Amino acid sequence: MKGIPPATVQRLPIYLRCLREFEAPTISSERLAELARVNSAKVRKDLSFLGSYGTRGVGYDVDHLTHQVSRELGLTKDWAVCIVGMGNLGNALARYGGFGERGFDVLGLFDSDAGKVGRKVGNLRIEPLGAFAKAVKSRGFSIGVITTPASAAQESADRMVKAGITSILNFAPIVLSVPEEVDVRRVDLSTELQICSFYLSRSAGKRAS
Amino acid sequence: MKGIPPATVQRLPIYLRCLREFEAPTISSERLAELARVNSAKVRKDLSFLGSYGTRGVGYDVDHLTHQVSRELGLTKDWAVCIVGMGNLGNALARYGGFGERGFDVLGLFDSDAGKVGRKVGNLRIEPLGAFAKAVKSRGFSIGVITTPASAAQESADRMVKAGITSILNFAPIVLSVPEEVDVRRVDLSTELQICSFYLSRSAGKRAS
Repeated sequence: MKGIPPATVQRLPIYLRCLREFEAPTISSERLAELARVNSAKVRKDLSFLGSYGTRGVGYDVDHLTHQVSRELGLTKDWAVCIVGMGNLGNALARYGGFGERGFDVLGLFDSDAGKVGRKVGNLRIEPLGAFAKAVKSRGFSIGVITTPASAAQESADRMVKAGITSILNFAPIVLSVPEEVDVRRVDLSTELQICSFYLSRSAGKRAS
Repeated sequence: MKGIPPATVQRLPIYLRCLREFEAPTISSERLAELARVNSAKVRKDLSFLGSYGTRGVGYDVDHLTHQVSRELGLTKDWAVCIVGMGNLGNALARYGGFGERGFDVLGLFDSDAGKVGRKVGNLRIEPLGAFAKAVKSRGFSIGVITTPASAAQESADRMVKAGITSILNFAPIVLSVPEEVDVRRVDLSTELQICSFYLSRSAGKRAS
């Protein structure tokens, strides 16, 4: 069991995206650092946790490194994903092209609203929450995505935990209570706006001074 | 001009969220580290860039630190935000409750589809792209959010740049070309799923071994 620090794990998807978009066969740590917006010593350290050291004067082989990062992230197998809460965000995620190609198969969409049940989104139909537990068993959902309003999020999490899901991605603006063995990741859609704001205030400051 | 490293900037919104959810008057770097999932030495270092050092045995004053992080992120003033591309994701973001309370006022929604123009989303009506440049002038949008399909994203970015927007948040799965002085941040909605996958493969490995 290699101990990869959580902060490194957070950066692996960023490296992966940069590598996938990079068009030359090799990449230097400096270039990867620039694309990923971290410093190059950190890139080298992060990649060393994966056993990747690059070649002095040449850099890293892009294909090999892409494979290594993917494998480390568990992306060489596919994961079945379900989404609970089919409002705008649930619909947007269900239709989001990027999931399938990264190994995340959205295989179930659920909502408590009888008016939404049966509606088609892409290739799937929205199912009632009553069908959730059985669907987890038959379709083996590994990751549950919560896109309900805040008021329904805890109940959705309880349902997921009860059905055996151990990894939850929560878009609802609420802190969920789950047993210790369940991994909950909270996505705050305003995070990146806050980073925009940081750089904007800096450049506004520069212009003013 | 203080030089706050980009990696620290990335973590500031996470600290801010943790601080806002924390209910005691003081917080130790260890506790904040645990909530933010980074190590506590890094928390102390990050906060030292803000001139915050905490008090030994007591920790940081939560209100004061919240204010410092907010100020550093430029959140003590409001920013006007516009969204181009009113599909599911655009609608989800326009209705997302978390923006307003964090100082991001969504003041304009635009789409090229005449069928969508005029439709009401929250308190706003979707406007045609032809009205964009004038709206930037009159409403002072600082941040442009792109939620169009990939095929329309570059054109949207060009329009934003031409209208004087210098900060773009891009949700479309494409790399945008913009002049150097424009800050583009790309949001990949599958990033957090990839981190879920990392921890899932680890725990699956643990169970199997």
